[in-house]
Amino acid sequence: MSPKITDAQRDHKRKEILEAAMRVFTRQGYQATTMKDIVDESGLSRGGVYLYFTSTKEMLIAIIEDMDRESYDQLDELLTQYPSVWSALNALFDQAELDIKNFETCLIPALYEALMFGWRNKTYEDLNNARYDKSIAKIVDLLQAGVERGEFRPLQPLETIASMIATFNDGLMIHAMQLGPERSRSAEQIKAYKQVFKNLLGVQEEGTE
Amino acid sequence: MSPKITDAQRDHKRKEILEAAMRVFTRQGYQATTMKDIVDESGLSRGGVYLYFTSTKEMLIAIIEDMDRESYDQLDELLTQYPSVWSALNALFDQAELDIKNFETCLIPALYEALMFGWRNKTYEDLNNARYDKSIAKIVDLLQAGVERGEFRPLQPLETIASMIATFNDGLMIHAMQLGPERSRSAEQIKAYKQVFKNLLGVQEEGTE
Repeated sequence: MSPKITDAQRDHKRKEILEAAMRVFTRQGYQATTMKDIVDESGLSRGGVYLYFTSTKEMLIAIIEDMDRESYDQLDELLTQYPSVWSALNALFDQAELDIKNFETCLIPALYEALMFGWRNKTYEDLNNARYDKSIAKIVDLLQAGVERGEFRPLQPLETIASMIATFNDGLMIHAMQLGPERSRSAEQIKAYKQVFKNLLGVQEEGTE
Repeated sequence: MSPKITDAQRDHKRKEILEAAMRVFTRQGYQATTMKDIVDESGLSRGGVYLYFTSTKEMLIAIIEDMDRESYDQLDELLTQYPSVWSALNALFDQAELDIKNFETCLIPALYEALMFGWRNKTYEDLNNARYDKSIAKIVDLLQAGVERGEFRPLQPLETIASMIATFNDGLMIHAMQLGPERSRSAEQIKAYKQVFKNLLGVQEEGTE
């Protein structure tokens, strides 16, 4: 009879496995990673890992769900942390710049690789659709707060502006990955896009930082 | 002794093979395509195909080179076909909208898939870098013509604006692929981005269509 394990122990083990998976995905990408790579990295037994996850795809989805939960929470808290909605938005742009600088040691390229590769066989279609809709809804909520506070007088529907932010963000990340931040002028683009969105949102001068 | 074939016959055969490859890539994507798939599609013998190309990667690169040559020529001709630089740029945005509508029957998703997948192992690094630099240089030339004709008074360096156009274009394509044009609001975004670039370029009213 095996010893009973508590929920806390279970959560801890799950976290340990996912952290090993993130290190391997970050190092060698998603497609090139096998379950054996992650078992080896975790230092746990094969059977121990398979109790929690039976494929790298399951691990990837669990990692994305954890990351999304965290970043949705961050989005919800943004408004309490910054004096204006516009300065909160600027923090998001600055975060993108930071992510780009840390690409070599960050999971984002592996995520893009996995989600992009899954496109044709629709592996991640439902996940992609749900994540996109939820991100857009979160950004719209943020922008709507700016409108209600009298900070913004937007020139376009908020849904369109939110989609444009998502397009810009993903385009920027993918170019920085493929070409490097220097060649794709990431920093200059982020600076210019801040100006673009300031204009599109009709940021009222008293509302800026 | 095999019969001598002329350059024209050779070009014709090469084109026939690449057209077969494009049909297969479009239908089933790049990663999922084997040399056998393309031999079968072409109706030629295995040996006949291998005389020209020994891998799907070689075919992909040849297809990209042909497409780029054509699109650089189109860019060079744009200025003779449109009354203003701004209307020529608008035609490029409209082309993106058309490409998105025809994704199901077009090669673009397979190209993104291949170039993205190749990222980590740097398979296409030189190709990606050269293509990016050349596209940016072509767009800068176009924008520069607008400045020289007094049509534009840009608010940002032309290289930055050109990189922003590239970022927007790729972000838009990738979202339309992954999420569909409706969900990602492709048409609304293109309309709004036209306004954004009109503003960034400082399009002078007499210079518009």
